[in-house]
Formats: sequence, C-alpha cells, structure tokens
Amino acid sequence: METGNNPEKSQVYMNLVDGGVCAPQGFLASGIRCGIKESAVKLDLALVYSPQPCTSAAVFTTNRVQAASVVVSREHNRDGKIRALIANSGNANACTGTAGLEAARRMADLAAEKLGHNAAEIAVASTGVIGVPLPIERIEAGIDPLADFLDPNGGEAALEAIMTTDTRKKFTAVEFTLDEKSTRPVRIGAMVKGSGMIHPNMATMICVITTDAAISAPLLDTALRRAVNRSFNRLTVDGDMSTNDMALVMANGSAGNPLIDSKSAAWETFASALETVCVGLAKAMARDGEGASRLLTVTVSGAASEEDAAALARSVAASSLVKTACFGADANWGRVVCALGYAGVPFKPEETSVEFASAVGSIPVCKNGEALPFSEEKAKQILLEEEIEIRVVAGSGEGRASAWGCDLTYDYVEINGDYRS
Amino acid sequence: METGNNPEKSQVYMNLVDGGVCAPQGFLASGIRCGIKESAVKLDLALVYSPQPCTSAAVFTTNRVQAASVVVSREHNRDGKIRALIANSGNANACTGTAGLEAARRMADLAAEKLGHNAAEIAVASTGVIGVPLPIERIEAGIDPLADFLDPNGGEAALEAIMTTDTRKKFTAVEFTLDEKSTRPVRIGAMVKGSGMIHPNMATMICVITTDAAISAPLLDTALRRAVNRSFNRLTVDGDMSTNDMALVMANGSAGNPLIDSKSAAWETFASALETVCVGLAKAMARDGEGASRLLTVTVSGAASEEDAAALARSVAASSLVKTACFGADANWGRVVCALGYAGVPFKPEETSVEFASAVGSIPVCKNGEALPFSEEKAKQILLEEEIEIRVVAGSGEGRASAWGCDLTYDYVEINGDYRS
Repeated sequence: METGNNPEKSQVYMNLVDGGVCAPQGFLASGIRCGIKESAVKLDLALVYSPQPCTSAAVFTTNRVQAASVVVSREHNRDGKIRALIANSGNANACTGTAGLEAARRMADLAAEKLGHNAAEIAVASTGVIGVPLPIERIEAGIDPLADFLDPNGGEAALEAIMTTDTRKKFTAVEFTLDEKSTRPVRIGAMVKGSGMIHPNMATMICVITTDAAISAPLLDTALRRAVNRSFNRLTVDGDMSTNDMALVMANGSAGNPLIDSKSAAWETFASALETVCVGLAKAMARDGEGASRLLTVTVSGAASEEDAAALARSVAASSLVKTACFGADANWGRVVCALGYAGVPFKPEETSVEFASAVGSIPVCKNGEALPFSEEKAKQILLEEEIEIRVVAGSGEGRASAWGCDLTYDYVEINGDYRS
Repeated sequence: METGNNPEKSQVYMNLVDGGVCAPQGFLASGIRCGIKESAVKLDLALVYSPQPCTSAAVFTTNRVQAASVVVSREHNRDGKIRALIANSGNANACTGTAGLEAARRMADLAAEKLGHNAAEIAVASTGVIGVPLPIERIEAGIDPLADFLDPNGGEAALEAIMTTDTRKKFTAVEFTLDEKSTRPVRIGAMVKGSGMIHPNMATMICVITTDAAISAPLLDTALRRAVNRSFNRLTVDGDMSTNDMALVMANGSAGNPLIDSKSAAWETFASALETVCVGLAKAMARDGEGASRLLTVTVSGAASEEDAAALARSVAASSLVKTACFGADANWGRVVCALGYAGVPFKPEETSVEFASAVGSIPVCKNGEALPFSEEKAKQILLEEEIEIRVVAGSGEGRASAWGCDLTYDYVEINGDYRS
C-alpha cells in the first residue's frame, strides 16, 4: 500500500537506527517520576540535552490561548540557541496566569542552573490538564535526579515522561549522508507525544528532534517549517493547534559536516530527511489516535495545488462520518465526496474519483462523481485492515498531498468522557 | 436556565398551536410509503401543498457537491413562487449524475401534473444514502396515493416521511398578530428533518416552513436568511452544509393581512416570529443529535460583534473534546477555553470567564482566564442534567450569540459505524 513517504521510500537513502533522540552524537536524555501525575509509577519529568552548543528552531501552537511553556520557549528560541528541553506531563500549565508563567520560567531556570547554562538556552514544555496550577515544588525536588540520570541511552525514559494518553511510544532515528562524497553520516532522532488526534487541534503535541548535523539556525528553521507543514499540519482539521503544541529541533554539529548555511544540495537532503522523520511520526500519531483501531491515509491528487490537495485530504480525514465509517469498515464513499465538498477549496466533483485501498487490495467506488458498481464484500475485506487509504482524484491538476487520521470508535468516547478523573 | 430564544420568551407574543406545517390556513400535507426505504413500514414520500398560490424563499447548502434536488429546487425557487414540496427519504439522489438530475426533475413534474400546476412551482428534496440511483419508478407509482392523501391534518405523516436517523418528530407552529390593531392572527408552521448534528455539515437538513401571512418574496427571503443565520447556522461547525440541505418557506397569504412588502414593523414582527420558530427547531435538532444524551447550549457574550460571538460559541459547541466531556458530565473548562482559542476570531483570554449551568443551578469555573476553585460534586450535578449551558464571557464587547450542540456518545459511533447496512 502506498501511504505517503516513509524511510524506505524516501528519495534520500537512509537507515533506521536505534536510540531515538539520543541517536545523534552528543545528546543525552533522562526521564523520572517527580509526582505531578497521580500514578505512583508513571514518569512525568523529562530532559533532553546537548553538552555542546546547538542551533535550534521551533514551531508553536497558533491557538490564541497559549500555555506558559509556549510563551517561555518561544522567547528563549528567539536566538536559535536552544540546547536543552525540560518537559513535564500531567499538567499543561495553561490558563494558569502569572503564577503559571513564573512556574515555566522557574523550570527553565532550574535546568539552566543545574546544567550550567543560560536559561535562554533551555526550552520548556508541559502537557496534561489545563487550568490547574503547576506544582513547581515537585519539579524543584526532581531536578537533581533528573540531571543525574542524563544518559546517552535515556531517550526512552524521556519519551515515557512526556506521554499522557499515548498508548505507543512514538520515536524514530535515521542515519544518512549529506552528499555522495561525504563519509561521515548525519543522524536525526525524534520523539513525539500526542494521541488525541481525532481533534488534533486540541491535543498537545510535543515533538523533540535532535540532530548532529551542523546547520545554521535560519536554515534549520526553514527545513522544520516545511517538514511540519507536510506532516503534523496534515493531521489537523485546519492548522490550528492546542494551547501547548510545539515542535523543537536542536542541532549540535557533532557530525562534523561543513556547516549548512544556504539552500544547498546538502540542505535539501537534510530537509528531506527531516520531512521523512516528521511524516513517520505524524502517521504514528494518527495510528495512536485516542481509541483508534485503524490508521487512515487520505491521498488527494489532481487538485489545483499542493495546498488545495492538502485541504481536501484533511477535510476527508477529519470528518466524523468518514471516521465512523472506517470504524465500521463501511465503503461509504458518499461521505468522502461530501467532505470534499465542504473543504473550502475548488475541485471538480464531475471529475472526481474515489478508491479504497489497503494491503489486501484496492477497489474503485466512484468515477466522475458517480457510483461505480463494486463488491461490498471485497470492499469490507479491504477496509477491515489496520491501515487503510482513501485515494481521491479531484480533477486534472498537479496538486497532490496526503493527510492522516484514524477511525472514530467507542474507545475515543470512553477515553475523553472523563479524562480528568 | 437561559438557553436562548424560545417561544415563551420572545419579544413577539405568540401562542404555540397544533398542526405543524398544516397549522397555517390553506396548507395540506401527506406522507406515504412508496418503497424507497427498505423498511416495510416506514414512510418515505412526502408532499406539502398550498392550493392557493404562494410566495416563497429558500436557502440551500453551500457544499460544492450539490444533490440533484438542490439544483432543481434552486432553479424553481428563482421566481419565489413555490407552492408545493415533494420530498423523499431513503435516498439522497446526490452524486448520481445526469440520471439523478433527470429523476429530480421527474419528481417535480409528477407533482406538478398531479396537482395541475407548473413544475416551476414545485420544490424537490431528497435525503438518505449518497451515490445510489434514485428508484424514480417507485415515486411514479406513489404519486397518486400521495396526492390522494393530502389532508389538512397530514403534517405528521409528511414529517415521518422525511425522517431518517431522526429519533424525534421535530415540528412546531405558532400564532401571533402582526400589529396591535390587527384582529386576524397569522400562523407559521414548520417541520425539520436532521439529526447527524455532531458534524452537521454532513447531515441533511430539510426544513419546511409554511405561513398564511401575505408577504412578498424578497421580504420573505430577507426574513428567512436572518432566521437561518441565527438558528441552523449556529448548529454548524463552519456554516458549511451537506449536499442536500435546504430550508424552504412558502407563504400563501390566507391570513388576509395587508401584504408585507417593506421592512415595516409588521415585517419585523414576522421575521422575529420566524427566527423564534427556527431557533426552536435548531435546538430540537441538537437535542436529537445522533446518539445525543444532552442538549448543549453555548452562549458567548462580551465579544467584539455578534458574528465573533457566534464563531466562538460554534467552536466550543463543535469540539469533540467538549462534547465528550459533556457526555461524562465532566466540568473540563480547559477544553472550552482551548476551543475558544482556535475559533479564528479575536477575544481576550485574560478577560474570559466560563460558567456551567443547567436547571439545577450554575457554577463559575474560570475567571479572567484562570481557574476558580469549585465543587466538583456540584458541577457534576449540574452537568448531569439533560439540558446544559456553557456560558462564556469573552471580553467587554457587545457581541452576544448562542450556538447549539449535543454530547458525543457511544451511540453516535454505533449509529454511524455502519449507517448503510
């Protein structure tokens, strides 16, 4: 099944490697339990750190309500020199006023003091319940063990410590070379937290990416924005995000490559690899959608532009009626066409075709906007797979894009019916 | 509980009367089973008719994919002289190409011939599954009994014949006087079909309104648009609609009032009454949302304008996380503030307050964007009611609006998981 980019199919040849955010040289991480979560065993405080200075780039939520951690991290990232992230789960530190802002600054200060750096080099992230004061004293008590546990194998602990309703550990790392002559490989490692992907604009996403490439902050920023636009933003209904979302990339230059400071071939290679990593994580988030039983990829081609194709694909992937039909393995293509119709961008209904696909085969169900006769039995068989794709041709344009989502299930309702309890 | 306009509280004094669309003088209706639905007992073909000529107004879906019935009805309504509606359930006649368009025209022709009028005076509506050819021969076979059953008490049968997943019959009728001197009362009757209100932009809404007021088509149109904007459009995520949505009003002048042909006091009275009727039906649709166990009213005040307030209210009412929290009777106000944040219109988080309310009381939970201490027990008690309200003050502006929705439940998933089977 063709479900968009993945490491195996990327134009950049790359190997998957172990270690997550610690896979690139020179990164350490740790995760501990400091008592913010009620659970007696779950980790809730994480640190990712490069002893060597980094360049950095970050994108943040566009929600008008912004968590204190977002305010502080945006401020600190202004110079593009973030080298460490301290993050907690169990409390979003959002809608917590001046005290919340002070608590977020205190988190950065604690990490800065302990690591011996300026607070401006520390990013902060929080995820969990909104509107509850952050128990900063628990983080104060936890900072020593958190730093003590820093380790080149600490990626998994750090990831566990930022998870909330996530049911899977979502991380990856790749190795590749920037150009044919290059002998020294470059690595990108990443982890992501977030699983409320049914309405992703309200699910906190924390994505931490590390790389040992040497790349200037502005070029890192450009690469990150393109990658996020083609991955995490294609999980969303409308590009909006939660109060706490952030994606951060730190580059420490340990790979020893010539500094990437222009849109060279090396930059293109790096940016493509970064995009592949982000797409992989985005799909992992969709697969781990709250209560999800199926990963849904919607691929739209034939649109007037990539942006239009993305809007059409997102509209289908976000439709509750399409999602429930996926849950029921019901080839209800009318709902697909209907969702295209309210995506808010032009397309040609009379030239539109729809096909359902999965590992066991594909079946065209609509051509030129009208029903095709098809075997309901075969369609059911295709849609019962864990990964399904809806392929739409929306005209004869060049625009093509995929969006990712998941089905809407009883479990989603159960998980969110009383999340705070 | 204050849940927006309702007949009792309207500025226009009006009485509720029986009869639905047949309550206004001179309207007949019927509903029969012609065999479009698989059920052996459910009605599926409806007719509403005024033997006297009417002025008419209608609004249609803004979806780029439009059902054949929408194309035909829009065309026929151009002169504002619709006097009859023929409607079927069990098949949406959407994405059915040229044959579908011919079938929709045939429906109008059948009614026109039988009733002895021009087809241009007949509106057509269809609701049900998309992409399946309409079995027009069953409507051809049904047209004689359909017309034979026309009756001044036929409103309920007509309503049953346009229902699909609706669980309640949603209709109303009111009587009022256009001005103090007037002795002859005017009536407005209405029925509505539609219950997929969790994603209302994909749920067919068919709203049929009748009145015996004498009012010119342009003034009727202005009144209908304002009423729809303040009612059905406040149920929706973004103002988009399904492939089949329509709201039609027919006015036959039987009440004998002086023709309303300017924005007079009488027009204002009529328009207010029409708005009250539409708001009542919109709330009934939310209450009958697929799988819904609670009616949710979101009222936003203090916004910069009515439009901004409506956008903020809709964003909260449409949030899956708010909806599931309502299902769980969970006072999770953070999700409310978060949904305000991505509504796409400006507001002041730092001046925002949130209160939950129902028949048993109200409880403030957030003030100036921060948590207030509150009794979880009392909040639960309030939220366990069947009608709940979320009241938001979003600043110090004059803009105020309500939006309506329902909770998201296991039953929604069940109903939509395999709707076609």
